[in-house]
Amino acid sequence: MSDHIAPDAGPASLASLLNPRSVAVIGASERSVWSRSVVQNLGGAGFPGSLHLVNRRGETCHGLPSVRSVAELDLVPDLAVVLTGSSALEGVLEETRAKGIRHLLVFAAGLGEAGAEGVALQERLVASARANGQLILGPNNLGFVNAHERVVAFGQPIPLPLLPGGVGIVSQSGALGIYVLKYMVSRGIGASMCVTVGNEAMISGTDVLEHLVEDPGTRVVALYLEQVGDPERFLRIARRATELGKPIVLYKAGRTEVSARVAAAHTGSLVGDDRVVSAVCAQYGVIRVDTIEDLVTTAGLLDSYGGVPGPRTGFVMASGAMCAVLADRAEQAGLELPVPSPETVAGIRAANLPAHAAIDNPLDVTGHVMDDPQILPAAIAQFLDDPRYDSVVVLGDVPAAESDLPRVEWLSRSILRLRTEHTTPLVPMRFLPADTTPFGRQWQEETGHPHVPDSFERGLAALGRSAWWARRRAELLGCEDPQPVPVALPGAGELSEVEAAALLRAHGVPYVPSEVAGSAEEAARIADRLGFPVAMKVVSPDIAHKTEVGGVLLGIGDEARAKEAYTEIVESVGKALPDARVQGVVVSPMRSGGTELVVGVVRDPQWGPVLAVGFGGVLVEMLRDTAVRLLPVGADDIRGMLAELRGYELLTGFRGRPAVDLDALVDVIAAVARIGSEVDEVEVNPLVVDADRIEALDVLLTLRAPTG
Amino acid sequence: MSDHIAPDAGPASLASLLNPRSVAVIGASERSVWSRSVVQNLGGAGFPGSLHLVNRRGETCHGLPSVRSVAELDLVPDLAVVLTGSSALEGVLEETRAKGIRHLLVFAAGLGEAGAEGVALQERLVASARANGQLILGPNNLGFVNAHERVVAFGQPIPLPLLPGGVGIVSQSGALGIYVLKYMVSRGIGASMCVTVGNEAMISGTDVLEHLVEDPGTRVVALYLEQVGDPERFLRIARRATELGKPIVLYKAGRTEVSARVAAAHTGSLVGDDRVVSAVCAQYGVIRVDTIEDLVTTAGLLDSYGGVPGPRTGFVMASGAMCAVLADRAEQAGLELPVPSPETVAGIRAANLPAHAAIDNPLDVTGHVMDDPQILPAAIAQFLDDPRYDSVVVLGDVPAAESDLPRVEWLSRSILRLRTEHTTPLVPMRFLPADTTPFGRQWQEETGHPHVPDSFERGLAALGRSAWWARRRAELLGCEDPQPVPVALPGAGELSEVEAAALLRAHGVPYVPSEVAGSAEEAARIADRLGFPVAMKVVSPDIAHKTEVGGVLLGIGDEARAKEAYTEIVESVGKALPDARVQGVVVSPMRSGGTELVVGVVRDPQWGPVLAVGFGGVLVEMLRDTAVRLLPVGADDIRGMLAELRGYELLTGFRGRPAVDLDALVDVIAAVARIGSEVDEVEVNPLVVDADRIEALDVLLTLRAPTG
Repeated sequence: MSDHIAPDAGPASLASLLNPRSVAVIGASERSVWSRSVVQNLGGAGFPGSLHLVNRRGETCHGLPSVRSVAELDLVPDLAVVLTGSSALEGVLEETRAKGIRHLLVFAAGLGEAGAEGVALQERLVASARANGQLILGPNNLGFVNAHERVVAFGQPIPLPLLPGGVGIVSQSGALGIYVLKYMVSRGIGASMCVTVGNEAMISGTDVLEHLVEDPGTRVVALYLEQVGDPERFLRIARRATELGKPIVLYKAGRTEVSARVAAAHTGSLVGDDRVVSAVCAQYGVIRVDTIEDLVTTAGLLDSYGGVPGPRTGFVMASGAMCAVLADRAEQAGLELPVPSPETVAGIRAANLPAHAAIDNPLDVTGHVMDDPQILPAAIAQFLDDPRYDSVVVLGDVPAAESDLPRVEWLSRSILRLRTEHTTPLVPMRFLPADTTPFGRQWQEETGHPHVPDSFERGLAALGRSAWWARRRAELLGCEDPQPVPVALPGAGELSEVEAAALLRAHGVPYVPSEVAGSAEEAARIADRLGFPVAMKVVSPDIAHKTEVGGVLLGIGDEARAKEAYTEIVESVGKALPDARVQGVVVSPMRSGGTELVVGVVRDPQWGPVLAVGFGGVLVEMLRDTAVRLLPVGADDIRGMLAELRGYELLTGFRGRPAVDLDALVDVIAAVARIGSEVDEVEVNPLVVDADRIEALDVLLTLRAPTG
Repeated sequence: MSDHIAPDAGPASLASLLNPRSVAVIGASERSVWSRSVVQNLGGAGFPGSLHLVNRRGETCHGLPSVRSVAELDLVPDLAVVLTGSSALEGVLEETRAKGIRHLLVFAAGLGEAGAEGVALQERLVASARANGQLILGPNNLGFVNAHERVVAFGQPIPLPLLPGGVGIVSQSGALGIYVLKYMVSRGIGASMCVTVGNEAMISGTDVLEHLVEDPGTRVVALYLEQVGDPERFLRIARRATELGKPIVLYKAGRTEVSARVAAAHTGSLVGDDRVVSAVCAQYGVIRVDTIEDLVTTAGLLDSYGGVPGPRTGFVMASGAMCAVLADRAEQAGLELPVPSPETVAGIRAANLPAHAAIDNPLDVTGHVMDDPQILPAAIAQFLDDPRYDSVVVLGDVPAAESDLPRVEWLSRSILRLRTEHTTPLVPMRFLPADTTPFGRQWQEETGHPHVPDSFERGLAALGRSAWWARRRAELLGCEDPQPVPVALPGAGELSEVEAAALLRAHGVPYVPSEVAGSAEEAARIADRLGFPVAMKVVSPDIAHKTEVGGVLLGIGDEARAKEAYTEIVESVGKALPDARVQGVVVSPMRSGGTELVVGVVRDPQWGPVLAVGFGGVLVEMLRDTAVRLLPVGADDIRGMLAELRGYELLTGFRGRPAVDLDALVDVIAAVARIGSEVDEVEVNPLVVDADRIEALDVLLTLRAPTG
């Protein structure tokens, strides 16, 4: 579905398409909602270029004259907005080609999204456009907005006037684009562009993302995606955005559907498609959000305040309840609330806070502020001077109407003054959601009042993400990208445990000694040599979960029992799975104690090899305490994975237990990752660790089918 | 801090206080913001009673005449709003008593919240009021609103006109009360009352809660609490609300502070104060929310739609993106999305949906709706007729202005018609947050359009809570309250493991055989009798975590090793804790296999004995997969606790493992709960379960200090 921009259209074409100085509407009609919307949107936004209508009958539409055909247009428009239905598109394409029009916006549905016939028609259109150096946005989309250039080529009514700003929007849904724009205006957040990509026949969401990352008018990119078309290119663009310091905020729909689909396979249940998307975002510094509201609030905060230097946040309020509510939210948002320094405490006390008021963070200046309003800005200034804070948050507001001015103005003047006198970011936030009215927007513009994020809940979450992004960006800029380390592996298909163990040992993964017995007597001999007690497990390429079929016996203490165990295992497996090929029974010395980890690599159909690390044991696997990263990973990534496990303390010494050698563990996991990047799937389960031991006790390994 | 209503004031007094027909403002002054707010609020709301001002100089205030003293008032007002500062309060109280005024609203700060002097003054005021049959709301509060009676006795400006409705609000914060009222109006949600309780000197939040639960004008109670003053009474009111079918929605501030405070103790870290509040809510059918926005949205939805019959929800939309977004939210909200029945599919197909559109739930009627708008109501009707759905959600809107009417009206008319023709609840929801304007409120009133919850995110969460509440209420009405079963226990202080084990066995908890050895030789003899291998553990009243001090040795295989183990344990403990009293070493047969549970009862300082059940093992405890309930509990409660553990499947048979006898397990947990309700603390850890065994392997038990 998602081709890139046609190479012959040249890299400048998307930029030109989005910034036309003349627009022709093909299929304009007085009765069409689409036609009226395009004309009214362009006019209402103050489109500075020229607008031309093509109507088969040459009728006046929406008060404007028209010509009867594309050929009759008295200029070659920079952009043709095509309103005709799908059946007429091939003719329109031919007419525009003949006229020399290069850029088309096509609204028609019934193409790539509508069955085989539609797909075939769309393919013909793309082939023709490509051959003739034409570029199509759409079809089946609703258009785009270029707010700075006042181009609103949109097929449904858009809230006007536009609020230009630094947020560039890419949406795989047209309807969503409209809702997001409207919501942004109501929150006082300005857009640079909003591009809906429809069927992505020639221009994909990724193309627009790349354009916006390079666009000087865009400071933040907000993405609504239902799927990522080209993962590799997405990652390349994410890297570029990191270099440029331009945050990408992503809402990716389909969490639940995806999680259901992937719940089937075993290691799959540890990873899950959607968790890979989250892992990719965390690795590449892309901010992932869970709601459209968070998409908009986060992008808006980043547009106005950038990445705040860190999570240590000071709060100055005039209500105890607000302090309580925001403390609940701030910690969940990943913010830290250090107490003020002694100097700050003394400074606030000197500013005349009542003696019974505690000086803490959040700071409640109490109802005393009604008698002495200056206590509030004085306390804010003290917090801004305190090096313990990376940013300071206060209760903000924007007047909805003239009558709100007395209430709002005195504090807003203080905020403006404090912002010029201090370098620490000062963020005024609304307590609860409220629309910013046209009056409020005008007031903000006239006074230069900074953006007021909408509500503690969303604003604090956005502030936390902003701090995360700034730190992650610094990390990514400060270290080299991990490089894949090729590992040469033989053959294809699933390896027996013994073969897989040999492979692991050869590549630096310590593996418990093990040998395969082909008979009860041999089992007893091997067990005697390795030392009792031993564990015995069936060797079969057809059995993934050996325990469930009676293929595993543990704690075998002597030779007689070893012989019996061999027979029991073979019989039990034979009964449970009569068709499974049994290649013997592997004998290993029993290990006890230690902490069990699971380390595996699976191949995500979209993103490629994914490393998962978690604690082992059936119960822990059910609780899903697993960290996930896209390969390749560096040692720092692996260290980060371990640290994000909720059971991490078990590795670093918990209740007097000795700590694990983390460097050695990271090396072993890196070795599994290197092997994993070259195979279909590998799962070391368990990898047992304690103070002086790191040892794999079992492995599943499937080599990749040879390609080419 | 939180006394109940003074008994001598009589149960009718709070109701009278909140519904005065005459109000005197004592301390009225042209220059006071408080004074102006009270007068303007009462006037603006259209207070139908009489308003009287007392100003020491008899000046005209806010355009109204005044008298110089309370004595000069020409009637005995039903309510005195007292604006004077704390130092004048004793005098005012005397004047109002002399006049015969029974009800006072006191705003002054500097009392119970402001140090010892303030506390003493507040106590004197309360004692005097109580002695004279007077009742005070406050002090240190901002007042109350009685919307149906148009009484706005509030010390700061309140958004007017009022929007009367069925949501009663209790707030321990005055400022929050204002913000919530304003936010409710902006979401089109009406209030019955809003009472802020300040220092709760005579009227607590619990008193107001009880009043609102009985108030016929209130259909839902929304609570903002920073602490629950009287847990027992709170539970009694919750039971009464369940009987009456009146939902209580609670926002309780201070989650993070509390969780930090309780992270210290061991079993404490399994429970945590705040988790007890959540458990109490879940048990008693109180809806707990995490944000003020959710408090308002949930109360508003319940006010308009009541408890929806169940979680099975149908969705009909005209946008694929909206379907994707809402599917993500709906599952998180606890809603279920069954596919439509074959009849529904056929009915929608017959209503002319394009052939390429999939008929699913959520249903996307596609852009086809622009050509044939009737497809939308037709599809909604089909969903409403489908018995697979407990409710149906559609995209709703309220016009912000006249210009929105063409867009909004056609669907709203269909919604109104469909609601009369079908019994399944039909809930129109906004996609994203937006203020309801005065125009929109008037339109809703005139057309009778039902409430439109604000945004999919909050609205779906509210719908999920509504369905949960309805089901929980049915459960609570359908079963008898669990009754405490007294267990007679001797003595006080911490029991040795051996004593505790005996106590458990006597009350129906199977406990592994164990005997205490006083010497190495005795240990060997006992071990031999019980059968090798054995576990050996130090017996000491001073050691909670025996493993950490080397007080536990496992897998002891013969008599010689048993003797050594005895000595090792005693020496190791002696080195680690030289002052610990060692009473011997307990010897038990080793058990292997099985699943470990932890079952404990701790005494929450506020709520009393709390049962916690979770899976065992250090790692699992770190992951905090624990269920919590207030005692007493019934067998159904315990079954519910097990079912809510994420590892529940391990008990019911997972990957071919045999299932545990759940009835027997519930009996054993009930026995621990019975013991727990009579002791300070008990923790059975581990309780090992498998197909044919339930056996406690260790226990900590502290008897309660004798009272009286």
